[in-house]
Amino acid sequence: MTDQLDATGKLRHLLTLDGLPREVLERLLDRADALRTPAQGGTGMRGVLAGKAVCTLFFEPSTRTRSSFQLAATRLGADVLTFDASVSSTTKGETASDTLKNIEAMGVQAFVIRHQADGAVAALAQDVQPGTALVNAGDGRRGHPTQGLLDMLTLRQAKGRDFSMLKVVIVGDVRHSRVARSDLHALRTLGAGEIRVCGPQSLLPDDDTLQGCTVTQDFDEALEGVDVVMMLRLQRERMQEGLIHSLADYHRDYGLGMDRLRRAAPDAVVLHPGPMNRGVEIDDAVADGRQSLILRQVANGVAVRMAVLEELLG
Amino acid sequence: MTDQLDATGKLRHLLTLDGLPREVLERLLDRADALRTPAQGGTGMRGVLAGKAVCTLFFEPSTRTRSSFQLAATRLGADVLTFDASVSSTTKGETASDTLKNIEAMGVQAFVIRHQADGAVAALAQDVQPGTALVNAGDGRRGHPTQGLLDMLTLRQAKGRDFSMLKVVIVGDVRHSRVARSDLHALRTLGAGEIRVCGPQSLLPDDDTLQGCTVTQDFDEALEGVDVVMMLRLQRERMQEGLIHSLADYHRDYGLGMDRLRRAAPDAVVLHPGPMNRGVEIDDAVADGRQSLILRQVANGVAVRMAVLEELLG
Amino acid sequence: MTDQLDATGKLRHLLTLDGLPREVLERLLDRADALRTPAQGGTGMRGVLAGKAVCTLFFEPSTRTRSSFQLAATRLGADVLTFDASVSSTTKGETASDTLKNIEAMGVQAFVIRHQADGAVAALAQDVQPGTALVNAGDGRRGHPTQGLLDMLTLRQAKGRDFSMLKVVIVGDVRHSRVARSDLHALRTLGAGEIRVCGPQSLLPDDDTLQGCTVTQDFDEALEGVDVVMMLRLQRERMQEGLIHSLADYHRDYGLGMDRLRRAAPDAVVLHPGPMNRGVEIDDAVADGRQSLILRQVANGVAVRMAVLEELLG
Repeated sequence: MTDQLDATGKLRHLLTLDGLPREVLERLLDRADALRTPAQGGTGMRGVLAGKAVCTLFFEPSTRTRSSFQLAATRLGADVLTFDASVSSTTKGETASDTLKNIEAMGVQAFVIRHQADGAVAALAQDVQPGTALVNAGDGRRGHPTQGLLDMLTLRQAKGRDFSMLKVVIVGDVRHSRVARSDLHALRTLGAGEIRVCGPQSLLPDDDTLQGCTVTQDFDEALEGVDVVMMLRLQRERMQEGLIHSLADYHRDYGLGMDRLRRAAPDAVVLHPGPMNRGVEIDDAVADGRQSLILRQVANGVAVRMAVLEELLG
Repeated sequence: MTDQLDATGKLRHLLTLDGLPREVLERLLDRADALRTPAQGGTGMRGVLAGKAVCTLFFEPSTRTRSSFQLAATRLGADVLTFDASVSSTTKGETASDTLKNIEAMGVQAFVIRHQADGAVAALAQDVQPGTALVNAGDGRRGHPTQGLLDMLTLRQAKGRDFSMLKVVIVGDVRHSRVARSDLHALRTLGAGEIRVCGPQSLLPDDDTLQGCTVTQDFDEALEGVDVVMMLRLQRERMQEGLIHSLADYHRDYGLGMDRLRRAAPDAVVLHPGPMNRGVEIDDAVADGRQSLILRQVANGVAVRMAVLEELLG
Repeated sequence: MTDQLDATGKLRHLLTLDGLPREVLERLLDRADALRTPAQGGTGMRGVLAGKAVCTLFFEPSTRTRSSFQLAATRLGADVLTFDASVSSTTKGETASDTLKNIEAMGVQAFVIRHQADGAVAALAQDVQPGTALVNAGDGRRGHPTQGLLDMLTLRQAKGRDFSMLKVVIVGDVRHSRVARSDLHALRTLGAGEIRVCGPQSLLPDDDTLQGCTVTQDFDEALEGVDVVMMLRLQRERMQEGLIHSLADYHRDYGLGMDRLRRAAPDAVVLHPGPMNRGVEIDDAVADGRQSLILRQVANGVAVRMAVLEELLG
């Protein structure tokens, strides 16, 4: 695989959190934390990427993630090119690599790529020029590293930098979730005290992914005393695929309501990567309650993406 | 309903022209008039919203209205985020309110929202932070306030600020038209001398909307001596719905040609919100004739939207 | 037809390369050549079109061409409005001319237009205000002048400014290709030594287009000793239309592999307008080989479009 770090330990691409050294991860989080205010607007950082171009190249649609990257790049002064590859040349038989190299040839210095296939972004990283940086904005089930980073930033702001005493549970469709995989990588690297994974058997991943985690199908048990509840989105397709029986059953067994949340530590926090299915995996009272950090995650997303783009191109 | 004015009488949101005080309406029109030249381009006003972000959040597509707002925001120096909610997260089961709050959390200070449901934008205004401003760019049949403002600006430029002697006719599918409702609100507030409403019975609205208007189904009669003819677009769906018999019949009874226009005052002006169905509600000779202010309306649209965004965020 | 030059010989529109004087063509190429570095990024030229707006108005989708124009306009400092007319007002019954005049009224100074109909852009040029410039970004089979220019720039960089000794072959679906037509116009104007056209009978154009060309259906023969091979994209629709028998047959007869390329001059160069069908009209070894100028074409595309926009609006 393409090494995502150069000889000096600086990021060349951001492809995965798997194996990303703790000092790099913490450097990015520190920088993102410092960027919280500029991430909400202002013109103070427009010089950082002025005259550079960032392309969002999405082979699978995701308006929210794309928008977050777009605002991050804009606030650093970059020109942003939105290339919706799900409706474009690729439908004319062009390979993803050719699409990428074409836009690169137009003078684009960084690509934010989402792709439906595991490892697709790392594969594309083989094809670009030395100065061009790729950011994985989600590849198959494999990873979504900036989501992992923004989740860690959100936890750090709420719980402090030392994760060694933290009990964290990740709940839901872990099997199909790139968010869960990136969170697991980052939580391990940052030394989280205990990581529990909870979901129905049909939505649990292979043992490799679960390494070092406590696994249970009983949500009530999984919540006991945790400091952090990371909910996952349930794709409605899982029902058609026969992986869950019904949304009502799923809600009964794995939906997070206030009653259930009381099993966690009193100051436990709740995260969700969005978009939420209210009334399925999460109830209104939790989503909008005082323990929810969901909108804080979104705000941190812009800061994290600014920190990543700045390190890659700045 | 959320009050769209703050304690000092400044706009916090622009949700409707219904009940908007005359002084606010006239202040916006005065400012828009002063912005006519910058509304056509240039960099002189880029400082006004520099570092702020405006999101066009359209749950129903409308490229023209979106483009007009985009140019207005850009010419004030804002960053513009285009969020096509008709093809996005909302299709993944997310509520409109969650979509809005998510983008708001990314550091967006104003939203320009189009939605298919009456009152949707006012409802969303309940959910945002105190500093965030919403502009209704069309909600169901309820209203399209910036269209109403640009129509008034166009009339003022043509006929002067005093509307008390003006005879105005609004023609066509008034029942389904948010443009007509916003025009009616503004014309009443500005004290138009006489307001006539004309269309087939099946396309006339309820009595509430028609308050204070002279109503007729006879277009020739309705045109007698008017100073202003406000044509409405006929949605072709009205035929499938059985509300009109045929486009040819509609054109015969409610299409505006030169012959008919001669019944109006010699210096009468013609408005149309676009897009036009030439040969249905309006003939080429009128659309492109010396009495048509249709392209002037479009130009004024950018100025009005700059004035609104400036008051909301400036 | 609207003259695309004003009285002083300056471009008012860029509609076609057919009949464009050699000095204008060479002036644009010289300027584009000088813009190679700024075309890859930077802020040095942002003043050229600052405060002006360029609209890409595509009645037929083409993300790559649109992106190239967008980056060119952005690097000159223009505001860029993307108007996807294939999903917009036009579907509501508005004429292309009304769509154009509406956006023009919003204060847009130049339009980059793609349309499926031959001559559509030249027709639209009749309807705009004197100060508004149109660039044809592809109209039907008729022409794609900036592609022709970027191909010529690429050839000039590889082979020098004097084309009189050059042997060029254009291969493939010449009949349906606007690229081929623009290349033919430019090659003739620049005095190319010999122009060969090669493809199956069913994909050859009329005699008018072929004027002055050597025509053959035998690709091997056509390649003998040429300095330049201009490959065309094969639209897969041609098979459904019965114009070609199968992709495999097409590849056997008209696909360019390394073996075949050896018939050309040893320093022959290969061009392709993209997107490529690898394994159909071109093999990997050629597309990615040392004789391929395909990515150089793409890079030159931004420079050419900057030169054109600068001359039209600067």
